[in-house]
Amino acid sequence: MPVNFPSIDPAQLHPVAGVTLGWAEGHIRKPNRKDVLVISVEEGASVAGVFTLNRFCAAPVIVCREHLAKAPALGGIRALVINTGNANAGTGEPGLAHARETCAELARLTGVKPEQILPFSTGVILEPLPVDRLKAALPDALAHREAANWFVAAESIMTTDTLPKAASKRVTIDGHTITMTGISKGAGMIKPNMATMLGFLALDAKIAQPVLDALVQYVADRSFNCVTVDGDTSTNDSFIVIASGRASLPAITSTDDPAYVALRDAVTAHAQTLSQLIVRDAEGATKFIAIQVEGGKDVAECRKIAYSIAHSPLVKTAFFASDPNLGRILAAVGYAGVDDLDVSRIDLYLDDVLVAKHGGRNPDYREEDGQRVMKQAEITVRLRLGRGDAEATIWTCDLSHDYVSINADYRS
Amino acid sequence: MPVNFPSIDPAQLHPVAGVTLGWAEGHIRKPNRKDVLVISVEEGASVAGVFTLNRFCAAPVIVCREHLAKAPALGGIRALVINTGNANAGTGEPGLAHARETCAELARLTGVKPEQILPFSTGVILEPLPVDRLKAALPDALAHREAANWFVAAESIMTTDTLPKAASKRVTIDGHTITMTGISKGAGMIKPNMATMLGFLALDAKIAQPVLDALVQYVADRSFNCVTVDGDTSTNDSFIVIASGRASLPAITSTDDPAYVALRDAVTAHAQTLSQLIVRDAEGATKFIAIQVEGGKDVAECRKIAYSIAHSPLVKTAFFASDPNLGRILAAVGYAGVDDLDVSRIDLYLDDVLVAKHGGRNPDYREEDGQRVMKQAEITVRLRLGRGDAEATIWTCDLSHDYVSINADYRS
Repeated sequence: MPVNFPSIDPAQLHPVAGVTLGWAEGHIRKPNRKDVLVISVEEGASVAGVFTLNRFCAAPVIVCREHLAKAPALGGIRALVINTGNANAGTGEPGLAHARETCAELARLTGVKPEQILPFSTGVILEPLPVDRLKAALPDALAHREAANWFVAAESIMTTDTLPKAASKRVTIDGHTITMTGISKGAGMIKPNMATMLGFLALDAKIAQPVLDALVQYVADRSFNCVTVDGDTSTNDSFIVIASGRASLPAITSTDDPAYVALRDAVTAHAQTLSQLIVRDAEGATKFIAIQVEGGKDVAECRKIAYSIAHSPLVKTAFFASDPNLGRILAAVGYAGVDDLDVSRIDLYLDDVLVAKHGGRNPDYREEDGQRVMKQAEITVRLRLGRGDAEATIWTCDLSHDYVSINADYRS
Repeated sequence: MPVNFPSIDPAQLHPVAGVTLGWAEGHIRKPNRKDVLVISVEEGASVAGVFTLNRFCAAPVIVCREHLAKAPALGGIRALVINTGNANAGTGEPGLAHARETCAELARLTGVKPEQILPFSTGVILEPLPVDRLKAALPDALAHREAANWFVAAESIMTTDTLPKAASKRVTIDGHTITMTGISKGAGMIKPNMATMLGFLALDAKIAQPVLDALVQYVADRSFNCVTVDGDTSTNDSFIVIASGRASLPAITSTDDPAYVALRDAVTAHAQTLSQLIVRDAEGATKFIAIQVEGGKDVAECRKIAYSIAHSPLVKTAFFASDPNLGRILAAVGYAGVDDLDVSRIDLYLDDVLVAKHGGRNPDYREEDGQRVMKQAEITVRLRLGRGDAEATIWTCDLSHDYVSINADYRS
């Protein structure tokens, strides 16, 4: 039951010049579903990505890191290949060989070098990738390539997602129109520590490689790295930005360029939309919750406290029940691991309702005010620490019966 | 649906000389239930405790720390007073005044000083303690005091517990019999960071105060501090050991005394039983899971990884479903935050089944073997890190629909 998930009109997902997308039914795990996607990028584009910090990172993540390092010297990244149904994680050396084999096959079919291909996988961990079926699906995916395929591309990377996730927008910078379109997927095992399960964002600006590298990290830290469903950082998290270079805006070659800042902020807002779609369609979610921690000494401690609240099963079930059992939030603040936290300086708001003041119950707080906010589909928890000027926001959801059902039944 | 919860015969809970227990119906939150307990301790006992590290610790925890520091000079702790139905946490200065008022009243009724009383509360956070009802219940609790009341005492500290938790045993040290009996409570908001919600253990040995202080920390670190249900460290965790001093064993005045080591190990085993009862009766639990991490560089990293597995909602729901979706365990190991972890050295066992070898799927692993173990009510997850000699074990449970139901409905 997605939470205020915007209706997406496939016709409103603008093509990005220089980028085409093609899908196939590869029968990776189940028959009769789109589970293979190829994103082709024409020559002259720059591509950058950030990946999971999970130590058990998947084979394709290892290969992506290698290829992103090598590709600029070889003519740049020319295609991305994504399969669902199998994460190719916890698969050791054979898994790594499978990821390389996939790249080699797509390189052969498209006349580029294997290092110009980026592989991605998502699905069940610890099972061998059916690499022959994946390779066999590639010609079909290539044949389907169209610039207008963003919606079907979003569909073809879904796993437990109930809705395809895509967003598109146009911004004007220095009088030049920039088009950006992106897709994402993920609904569980979501606490990106670099990026989400999978996020791909293309724009037509021309951006030099080091600048794009800086941009992707900046954007990830303010979008995909700010959402959490269950605190489970995936083995396959990847967030990729493709800058196809076809727009009329002059090339951006420095982060000091004022156009860089304008573009960076536009991409950040766009990536926030994409990442929030994941929370809105999170497994079993019935509520979309923003946790805003202000007045911290540094961003790290604000994030620590926000995650502590966002991951507390007790807080999450209280949101599911629309029960203003708000002491659970204070308990989560208290065990977040900020050792010198002075709780007597803390104020807690639920939207506009001041629940706790100076670390204790606000004498004017009335249960019915808390109840009113808790019944909403979107809620902001605002915590003021009174220690400094830093702040951080995390977006999350509640914990419902459906989350348990979905994850108890996922493989069956 | 408790997991292999032993049947407890009230007659087998041995009285501990010098300790009596009395209950009352105080109507703290709901009528017609035992919700107030007084444990009286005769002169000459030593008492020590450890408490939550939650920064939002409850008012009674603050008062307990003060009184434990002052009591030895004033004749020692003489009574403990425990209420359920209200945690007196997140209640600021008024909460602190209520806890002190409760101690003062019990001190008046029993002719001791307020600093000789320890107060404990458990229940809903952020609501004012109905201190008048609590005070009014004290005479009744005092009138009910009996040395044989351990079972009814365990009943009177229950909240969402479905069963009272108590255990008793006798050990012989240097030819002297030592009797120890304890009670505990807690089913949710359980990741003790000092101790569990509430654990009280009395024995009749005579133990000098500094020795008992060392013992209680040693025991807590190997029992209550090794269980977790939902990762939510409570605001009220308290674990108290009472040494009444009535046994014939000579007083233990040094941790170098060989009798100390024998006693310490016996108390540790006993506290492990009490703390495991909490996991067996955890909210919604259908499985009891031991997570044993071996071969770590230090205990801290073993615990970090064990907790990461124990708190993963995906791992917990897979256990609930008896689904050997074991890649989720590797993912949780990978994001535990041990940055230099070499996953290629890791082996994962489920009971006796080798699931992953050198960080990848064991080629000989068969799904039906994993399935067989996952169906059991008790499961050991054993992880070998291959980095050193340290190890740690954490006890936890699965995440079921009933956990969500219980916590979505707790206050209603």
